[in-house]
Amino acid sequence: MTRPANRQWLLARRPRGELSADDFKWVTSEVRTPGSGEVLVRNLFLSCDPTQRGWAAGETYFPAVRMGDVMRSFAAGEVLESNDPTFQKGQIIQGLFGWQDYAVVSQQHAEFPILPVPRGVSIETAMSVLGNTGITAYFGLLEIGRARTGETVVVSAASGATGMAAAQIAKIIGCRTVGIAGGPDKCRYLVEELGLDAAIDYKGENVITRMRELCPTGIDVYYDNVGGRILEAALANLALHGRIVLCGAISGYNEAGGPPGPRNYMKLLTARGRMEGFVVVDYMPRAEEATTAIAGWLREGKLKDLVDVQHGLENAPAIMQRLFTGQNRGKLLIKIADAGDAGGAR
Amino acid sequence: MTRPANRQWLLARRPRGELSADDFKWVTSEVRTPGSGEVLVRNLFLSCDPTQRGWAAGETYFPAVRMGDVMRSFAAGEVLESNDPTFQKGQIIQGLFGWQDYAVVSQQHAEFPILPVPRGVSIETAMSVLGNTGITAYFGLLEIGRARTGETVVVSAASGATGMAAAQIAKIIGCRTVGIAGGPDKCRYLVEELGLDAAIDYKGENVITRMRELCPTGIDVYYDNVGGRILEAALANLALHGRIVLCGAISGYNEAGGPPGPRNYMKLLTARGRMEGFVVVDYMPRAEEATTAIAGWLREGKLKDLVDVQHGLENAPAIMQRLFTGQNRGKLLIKIADAGDAGGAR
Repeated sequence: MTRPANRQWLLARRPRGELSADDFKWVTSEVRTPGSGEVLVRNLFLSCDPTQRGWAAGETYFPAVRMGDVMRSFAAGEVLESNDPTFQKGQIIQGLFGWQDYAVVSQQHAEFPILPVPRGVSIETAMSVLGNTGITAYFGLLEIGRARTGETVVVSAASGATGMAAAQIAKIIGCRTVGIAGGPDKCRYLVEELGLDAAIDYKGENVITRMRELCPTGIDVYYDNVGGRILEAALANLALHGRIVLCGAISGYNEAGGPPGPRNYMKLLTARGRMEGFVVVDYMPRAEEATTAIAGWLREGKLKDLVDVQHGLENAPAIMQRLFTGQNRGKLLIKIADAGDAGGAR
Repeated sequence: MTRPANRQWLLARRPRGELSADDFKWVTSEVRTPGSGEVLVRNLFLSCDPTQRGWAAGETYFPAVRMGDVMRSFAAGEVLESNDPTFQKGQIIQGLFGWQDYAVVSQQHAEFPILPVPRGVSIETAMSVLGNTGITAYFGLLEIGRARTGETVVVSAASGATGMAAAQIAKIIGCRTVGIAGGPDKCRYLVEELGLDAAIDYKGENVITRMRELCPTGIDVYYDNVGGRILEAALANLALHGRIVLCGAISGYNEAGGPPGPRNYMKLLTARGRMEGFVVVDYMPRAEEATTAIAGWLREGKLKDLVDVQHGLENAPAIMQRLFTGQNRGKLLIKIADAGDAGGAR
């Protein structure tokens, strides 16, 4: 059987400052035959996540992507061949399949579990609110943040994928919910379309003052995706026994040396507060709790899924920039093929 | 009845940078007659605590000391007159009695509970390991830090009052315990006299490297009294699910704007770590749990109490400096009178 060429983006150097196409090398290689327990996948969508910059830069909660290896990325694809009885040819699955057209993967050696995309669910939604993004938001807000009905929750990067999910879940469970985003359009969307109680435009408003006005009893849970001065503003407004959920720090990812530390972190002492980090990997054994709840909210129309679909594997490094420049809203995906496409090429 | 003159240190300005005698005003006033429910106390010892600088500088977990008010301080004293049936004349009690010879206080209006010094316990010990210092260390390490047998615990300012108690408790419950202190003498004391597993001299050693060597499996609990670059070193060496107990940040108390934020705080994400602050006030209803355990360890010779007694109310601002210059070891107290002294003056 002739195998098609596999276009790949390999890591060529550790990113410093902004992520750029020069950090990667575009190559074409052969697809190898899947061995015992392995599955050959045709990637259809790539997930764009801010954390990927960290994976390329060094060790995080995953080992660093090795120099010359395919850039690590969540993706969804169609099973072309399977030596794993749990996955069937033609099935759509998702996992860490990387920036390439084809991947040979195995559940046993995966750094993150390979999961099927359920029938009746679009691939886009399975990769956003019903995937890692939604699962991250759910456990971050409810398990790490322990947000409870009646509390005040503030979410940064609330028009980003995870923030949007976290803010909507906070609202659904009955929290007073304030989102932070860049620009009046995004803020209007958060309030008018997603139903948040208020939004703060960090580009046009004094964040610390607006937080104080909008959260007169203080912030019980701050779900942080950005770090930097917005984290400091949240600390300044933290309620007694307030919790800060560290989900990301995108404001500093492109800075050499990472984001600056919050100068007023000792507010955690006076407020008897807690700042805690987490990684969704640890919650995957309980993923169904989150996806069952989120699927219900989707059906009831209480939670919206917003996806920003861009196109072309060859554009992956450039499309990633959208995350760091505030261009995207909701979940950023790259469509690189349609299901069934691969058949003809083989 | 003629009352003696009451010498007092009043707050004259908010401290900026190092605490100095110029921040206070030395006055002599009359002692008022205790009213209903009130108690007249002759202060014998004043407690010196780094947190007092914060009380003078502004709002913390307590309201700021008001300009012109007696400087707030923990103290122990003898009851001279009592309109509170729970306290008897001649009894030794402790509480927030301030930088003055005499205080008129009431349990009902106290910002911190007034407690008797038990018979058979020296006032010094009642103010150190059997007082707030020991209670702080106990709950900080065990409740906030959740230190458990077999874990690795690192304590900064381990030759300071709270650090010394926390480090000894960690060792007693079976943790591998590393103390951090300034200079070889203090470090030798921690290992040879207190039995810690190791000590790091932050003035003469590379803290981050030594931590890595001494904690090869990472730090499970870091009990922080100092902040700054030592906090950053602990974050860098944090074990998976590590906890950071925020008890103080003395390295930055005298800096304008407070201690800098830890640049690598996002290690909390990759390590799934937690950083949490607390205030001993919240644990006072459970104080007996701590003091019962500590009294037992004292009797068994497992825990040592080290007290640095200085003299003279008039020297209070100068003596406080010892905390910030690394001069003192253990609990710093100021003796200002002997029990029974007051009788003659009245």
